[in-house]
Amino acid sequence: MDFDTINRMSANEFVRCFGGVFEHSPWVAEHAFAARPFADIDRLHAAMVAVVRSAPREEQIALLNAHPDLAGREAEEGTMTDASVAEQSSAGLDALSAGEVARIAELNVRYRARHGFPFIIAVRHYTKAGIFHEFERRLHESSDIELATALRQVFAITRMRLERLCASRQGVEA
Amino acid sequence: MDFDTINRMSANEFVRCFGGVFEHSPWVAEHAFAARPFADIDRLHAAMVAVVRSAPREEQIALLNAHPDLAGREAEEGTMTDASVAEQSSAGLDALSAGEVARIAELNVRYRARHGFPFIIAVRHYTKAGIFHEFERRLHESSDIELATALRQVFAITRMRLERLCASRQGVEA
Repeated sequence: MDFDTINRMSANEFVRCFGGVFEHSPWVAEHAFAARPFADIDRLHAAMVAVVRSAPREEQIALLNAHPDLAGREAEEGTMTDASVAEQSSAGLDALSAGEVARIAELNVRYRARHGFPFIIAVRHYTKAGIFHEFERRLHESSDIELATALRQVFAITRMRLERLCASRQGVEA
Repeated sequence: MDFDTINRMSANEFVRCFGGVFEHSPWVAEHAFAARPFADIDRLHAAMVAVVRSAPREEQIALLNAHPDLAGREAEEGTMTDASVAEQSSAGLDALSAGEVARIAELNVRYRARHGFPFIIAVRHYTKAGIFHEFERRLHESSDIELATALRQVFAITRMRLERLCASRQGVEA
């Protein structure tokens, strides 16, 4: 996708295009719109990251809570966003053994109870063994550290989503 | 491998068996030997971790420096330990494009210059994209944070090495 095209979008078009990059949180794109024009993906993503970083803590936590549990109820019921479905299947989380499903379910409950938001990880960056390892480790961190880590993971996830979005749009236009 | 067998080993046998778990650093097994008997892998690994944690900072840094660069000179020259070869190939680091090789070489140089030890990551926990992402991110952390992170990665690596070692021994004995 051409940045001339992006920079000429109306607010509505911009949010229709980028509102889904941050999970169920179109307000990030809505606020980032004001930072036009964007020279490239880096600047566009940086503008979105700046919106989240400057949001009050409650809104940051609401953003985290807009994410599905890892291999959780939404995955089972088929109600996850397409992006989350593709991400979770990339690490083999759509093909877990019964023991692994039970282990993740238990970790999800304990993590939420301790930190107040779901465990978020850029699954495209980890192997299944790495995801389990990080889940156990991060469960025991302080919630302040976890808020920072979870936001960093969200930024890694959204950077990859933005790249895919721009690449696929380019394909359509070509 | 049976823990009765392990707990009956002489110091020499023990170090011959476990001296390679921490890369080129048999002193970890030598000191952990004193903590016998071990009930299971968790306790054996915990004893080794305790040896490293209580070592002076210079020895911890020497341990980090006993590790090869990621996809670096040792990999190219074929002088890495068998464990490192298997680990680095698991993430596809033995089949990088010319651009990726150049990028890692540059990151290796910058990371060492900034922190004073090589970039260490439990490659079996990450995808190739995740390794590049962590490399860029950790390059910019403080060296104190990186020392802690690198040791945590070494502990994750050695836990997996210990599991493989015990599993393969079991195969030989069975």
